[in-house]
Amino acid sequence: MTGARKRSAINPSRRSRREKSGARFQNLADALAQIGRSFYQRGWVFGTSGNFSAVVSERPLRLAITPTGLDKGALEAGQFLEIDEAARVVRGNGMPSAETGLHLAIVRTRGAGAVLHTHSLWSTVLSDVFSADGALALDGFEMLKGLRDIHTHEHREILPIFENCQNIAQLATQVEALLKHEPAVHGFLLRRHGLYTWGQDLAEAKRHVEILEFLLEALGRSRTGV
Amino acid sequence: MTGARKRSAINPSRRSRREKSGARFQNLADALAQIGRSFYQRGWVFGTSGNFSAVVSERPLRLAITPTGLDKGALEAGQFLEIDEAARVVRGNGMPSAETGLHLAIVRTRGAGAVLHTHSLWSTVLSDVFSADGALALDGFEMLKGLRDIHTHEHREILPIFENCQNIAQLATQVEALLKHEPAVHGFLLRRHGLYTWGQDLAEAKRHVEILEFLLEALGRSRTGV
Amino acid sequence: MTGARKRSAINPSRRSRREKSGARFQNLADALAQIGRSFYQRGWVFGTSGNFSAVVSERPLRLAITPTGLDKGALEAGQFLEIDEAARVVRGNGMPSAETGLHLAIVRTRGAGAVLHTHSLWSTVLSDVFSADGALALDGFEMLKGLRDIHTHEHREILPIFENCQNIAQLATQVEALLKHEPAVHGFLLRRHGLYTWGQDLAEAKRHVEILEFLLEALGRSRTGV
Amino acid sequence: MTGARKRSAINPSRRSRREKSGARFQNLADALAQIGRSFYQRGWVFGTSGNFSAVVSERPLRLAITPTGLDKGALEAGQFLEIDEAARVVRGNGMPSAETGLHLAIVRTRGAGAVLHTHSLWSTVLSDVFSADGALALDGFEMLKGLRDIHTHEHREILPIFENCQNIAQLATQVEALLKHEPAVHGFLLRRHGLYTWGQDLAEAKRHVEILEFLLEALGRSRTGV
Repeated sequence: MTGARKRSAINPSRRSRREKSGARFQNLADALAQIGRSFYQRGWVFGTSGNFSAVVSERPLRLAITPTGLDKGALEAGQFLEIDEAARVVRGNGMPSAETGLHLAIVRTRGAGAVLHTHSLWSTVLSDVFSADGALALDGFEMLKGLRDIHTHEHREILPIFENCQNIAQLATQVEALLKHEPAVHGFLLRRHGLYTWGQDLAEAKRHVEILEFLLEALGRSRTGV
Repeated sequence: MTGARKRSAINPSRRSRREKSGARFQNLADALAQIGRSFYQRGWVFGTSGNFSAVVSERPLRLAITPTGLDKGALEAGQFLEIDEAARVVRGNGMPSAETGLHLAIVRTRGAGAVLHTHSLWSTVLSDVFSADGALALDGFEMLKGLRDIHTHEHREILPIFENCQNIAQLATQVEALLKHEPAVHGFLLRRHGLYTWGQDLAEAKRHVEILEFLLEALGRSRTGV
Repeated sequence: MTGARKRSAINPSRRSRREKSGARFQNLADALAQIGRSFYQRGWVFGTSGNFSAVVSERPLRLAITPTGLDKGALEAGQFLEIDEAARVVRGNGMPSAETGLHLAIVRTRGAGAVLHTHSLWSTVLSDVFSADGALALDGFEMLKGLRDIHTHEHREILPIFENCQNIAQLATQVEALLKHEPAVHGFLLRRHGLYTWGQDLAEAKRHVEILEFLLEALGRSRTGV
Repeated sequence: MTGARKRSAINPSRRSRREKSGARFQNLADALAQIGRSFYQRGWVFGTSGNFSAVVSERPLRLAITPTGLDKGALEAGQFLEIDEAARVVRGNGMPSAETGLHLAIVRTRGAGAVLHTHSLWSTVLSDVFSADGALALDGFEMLKGLRDIHTHEHREILPIFENCQNIAQLATQVEALLKHEPAVHGFLLRRHGLYTWGQDLAEAKRHVEILEFLLEALGRSRTGV
């Protein structure tokens, strides 16, 4: 009997936990890759921009996340990394996205199951137009009901705008502080950079991207009297 | 001989009616799912918004309809429900769309064979811009000839705008009253919400969506002097 | 030996001419259907709008043409008709497009091998904006070099605008008169209706659609200072 | 033993060099064709506009390049040509793009591995709006970090604008002079014509197209206060 067989005979539950986590990582990486390619088709993550993550396990915390610098139009599951709570790579090869700190901050403060970040045209343009206000409001749209816990169009969704910054640790601290004090928020903008949103699971996070992108375009096109 | 065999032997016509209705439901669900996915591709039903129905039988009244809360980009025939004239589910699992009452009101008052509801950008924006007028007009376009019973571009199509409302029963009453008194209308808008249109069959309803969405965009882009 | 066999033995050249013409019709119908579906994807022929033709033979004149009232998103070669110089159907079932008279007028006056008609957003909007001038100008664009016989961007392409009209015979007379007197024209607009263009063959006609649609959008977006 | 066999026996390294270069040409032509078709889908190379090249070998200089006058929606690897440093065709049939001189000038002055040229809407419109300034600036966008050697959004990218000209030799001289004196530049515009950009390899050149096209649209839509 080999040592390997012995160990798995002695502690089968640990082995099966590892296998289950591996399967879950694969499923999430598949789903994230498919979402990434569809966002690329819509022009939301051009030029290797954007990044996507989903929680593989909560204890210990493990995230499937896009490595830095990939063409999202050709994104494949095999390219994803698994990282721990300190952004160390525990599965796969490559460097995790430079903005990993923001993903971890969102997961920690909101208990999010998935975080999606796009560089769309309207989030880029409007985050600049409203930057002096520090936020923009999406008000009275039926589409808002697709956001978690919103049950009527009579809702004013506030999308905070952060000044863009290359110091991600500092930005993550600002984001974490805001998310703790503004539990109603479903996403935020980085100025001339893009949108961050999240969900309890990946389907909800994808839905939030679509809703916020749609409402940003509606706001943008309404501003000139259409 | 089993009881089941006996019954089918005794009343073969009832059995074949049920089978025919089942096949018709499947065909309509297939066609609705395909239309739903194509509308999603165009950005008309983002974030689980939008809903679609078609009449399976008139007596008794049966509708194939989207359940609530689905991602329309991954819509499949197997997800559709069949409901009766009181919105009770008689086939499939799930809750029918929250706006089922509007679908039934349209089918009752217009004898429609299919009802399609989109949350597009231009219906959202223009339903707000013209809300004080209670309607908007689409005037003099060749494309209007694609609407049922319109045979010339020299036509002024009125698209009523209802204030959006979470009380669907109340909204359905308003819609039903309007449709009875305005037989020429081919669709209506809900403010900051979207477009409803319908047709004698599904192909006509789809055509009406395309025509009205096109004309709303043309109107929107013309308003700023392009 | 049957009569049919006898005839083909006696006059093999007539038989092969018919077969060759049948093959040519099939090839053109295939290519037209593919172009039609791609134009539908771009939103240029929504709601059964638009129509497409190509010359199968010059003597006698035979056109492959879309029948009236089809969903261009599902266009198939088998749906096309072959018509003669008087718009009589000689192959296929259905009624030729209501605007067949315009196709024939263009083929007669320009010796065109293919005619394509789109109902795009920008042709609809700009044909109205410039209708009082009776034409619009596309001036100084490199893209103009893709039009037949244009070899420099230093060219001013005039796109005449006709008032829209349900009397196609009358419209065809106007179009024919204009095309005879303006040999430099590559296309024209019908007000609030759409674009007609053509080419020596189908590839050239398709290229002309893309170029004129592109330049109309460039003109439209430039008018508000972008 | 045949002469051919003898030669390859005598000089196997030359033969294998030729074979390796042939394989590299095929790979680049495949990749260029795929990029060309995807750009066509986005409407960036309508009506046979646009052209694409990549360096097959540096010594001697060999480029894979699009021949003139092709529909980029149906671009295939087999249509590409291989040219030398004087734009002579050394592989394939056809005439190289009329703008080959610009590709060669860029490769010479920047050591680029690939050059991509698009005729997009926003490059056409904005190259005209800013033509009097001789350049436009893209300033403060996170997306800029995707350009080679740019590591912060606090960057002002200058996109020079050249007056359009049918004398490509003269234009190439101007472009070459500018690129020598402005090493920081990642692309340039030809007025009412389009965008040229490049990269160390094809992936980088494609990324630069996406980034610059995105930022041009962002600039364009921002100019009217959105």
